[in-house]
Amino acid sequence: MLAKLECASCIVDDLVGALKLLSLKKEVEKEILREAFSFLADEFSYSKTPSYFITMVHRILKRISKIPVPFKERREKCNETGLKIAERVYEEAKDLKDLERFSFLVKWAIAANELDFRTVGTGYDLEVERIGNMLSERFEEGLMIDQTEKIFQLVKKSPKILYIHDNVGEIALDKLLIEELKKYTDVVISALRGGPITSDATLEDGKKVGLQEVSSQLILAGPDTLGISLEEMSDELEENLQTTDMIIAKGQANYYALSEYKSKVKGKIACLFRTKCNPVSSIFGGRGKINLAVVL
Amino acid sequence: MLAKLECASCIVDDLVGALKLLSLKKEVEKEILREAFSFLADEFSYSKTPSYFITMVHRILKRISKIPVPFKERREKCNETGLKIAERVYEEAKDLKDLERFSFLVKWAIAANELDFRTVGTGYDLEVERIGNMLSERFEEGLMIDQTEKIFQLVKKSPKILYIHDNVGEIALDKLLIEELKKYTDVVISALRGGPITSDATLEDGKKVGLQEVSSQLILAGPDTLGISLEEMSDELEENLQTTDMIIAKGQANYYALSEYKSKVKGKIACLFRTKCNPVSSIFGGRGKINLAVVL
Repeated sequence: MLAKLECASCIVDDLVGALKLLSLKKEVEKEILREAFSFLADEFSYSKTPSYFITMVHRILKRISKIPVPFKERREKCNETGLKIAERVYEEAKDLKDLERFSFLVKWAIAANELDFRTVGTGYDLEVERIGNMLSERFEEGLMIDQTEKIFQLVKKSPKILYIHDNVGEIALDKLLIEELKKYTDVVISALRGGPITSDATLEDGKKVGLQEVSSQLILAGPDTLGISLEEMSDELEENLQTTDMIIAKGQANYYALSEYKSKVKGKIACLFRTKCNPVSSIFGGRGKINLAVVL
Repeated sequence: MLAKLECASCIVDDLVGALKLLSLKKEVEKEILREAFSFLADEFSYSKTPSYFITMVHRILKRISKIPVPFKERREKCNETGLKIAERVYEEAKDLKDLERFSFLVKWAIAANELDFRTVGTGYDLEVERIGNMLSERFEEGLMIDQTEKIFQLVKKSPKILYIHDNVGEIALDKLLIEELKKYTDVVISALRGGPITSDATLEDGKKVGLQEVSSQLILAGPDTLGISLEEMSDELEENLQTTDMIIAKGQANYYALSEYKSKVKGKIACLFRTKCNPVSSIFGGRGKINLAVVL
């Protein structure tokens, strides 16, 4: 999906949310805003994904603030909380089998997509302690479009699956789903970001929650881009997108990229995410924030 | 009040809301966004009121779109609806007297402050038909800070009052309050905008709802600025601000300007409005949108 009119204010709002949490000196804050507005004046268009613009304004933030990993402590707490929730979910899944178990874990992996600083409560200002209850509520909401059965059949027919992750914390629930995928497929490749941006999980985060214990391989998706990037993806990701039988992608930013990239790959693409805004929800006939398990 | 960090995204969001409703050609839309971002890159700071920046991006919109009066039809409908609601409110106030009647009309004038394209439902996308019910709900909410009694005493001691209006539609309820003020004071001067911006009422709007029937005089507050402007107010407004015993100002943008201008005037300033955002509500110890009748 390419940027729409509404994305113009959302990009600025995302940057403002991040700045609000970082409490930088007013002069630094203003310099970041100045450069971000200048970048948007030169580059904002409807011919790139929203994630491209968000990536760029957050890079301006990192460069000018000289903070290489914004929200470091928050990111770590999210991973720890994710692991605790995953333990509980694992227990709850104990007596489930086949499609029922698969669907249960897919739904939890989607509920965990809410673990995004941008969209939880007041933007970046989340209380990590509330997360457990909040994710249970998301799980209880169910899926507005539920193609888990179709996805289950596709998984069983796909010897190689590429799994593209989204947020810190959420990856602990992805780990449970990947463990399940491995019962039905030979190879699952986990793709993670090379650098931090908002709450997106990096290779390092993947290792922290132990994704390497369940995935066949962890690969670098590219640098610090919001979701995978059409312009900056790594050769490794590009090659895997071409050679995989199925892609499972988490999060809205990965949906942006893959809905544009779909015609270039042979494998099926399943997107598991909770939408963040009306422009995306309306594509699926919804409003507000909705949970989706869809095959593109 | 001067602009805060959060205002950066709100300014863009307000412009996007207006663009969304106008459905311009994509090229025109992008040109407006480009120029607005460029203006904000050059000028956004924490040393001017938020309304200055909103005024400027809306002027960019009007100039590039070549639409001199955006939302013309919507503005007219708002005035018509305001007049109908005012008739009903007038009937309901029939048996009230003194402070009780004054408070009732103040509260309705504040409830009517919700008649702002920027903040009603999905930004500019209001359904005029819903307005009546919505305003009743706002009235029922009551005031978070209620200094109507203090304002009533000040009114009785002030031979000359300057009334600074805010939105179309809302001015029909202001008319009822001014009629009431005239029972306790000799002169009420109504100040209105010289040109259209978002939903702010112009001199022409004032005449349409018959403000001249109750006010001693209608004056031009300045050109097409969001609320009154510290930089662009008319000589007439500046003079009246200096010579009046009391100022009654409607709306958040007029609060921005008058809270900065307060030290320069001798008269008391009462602000009657419904807040639009947390940065302003938090000044008064609230959150979300709250109704206020305060003496600055």
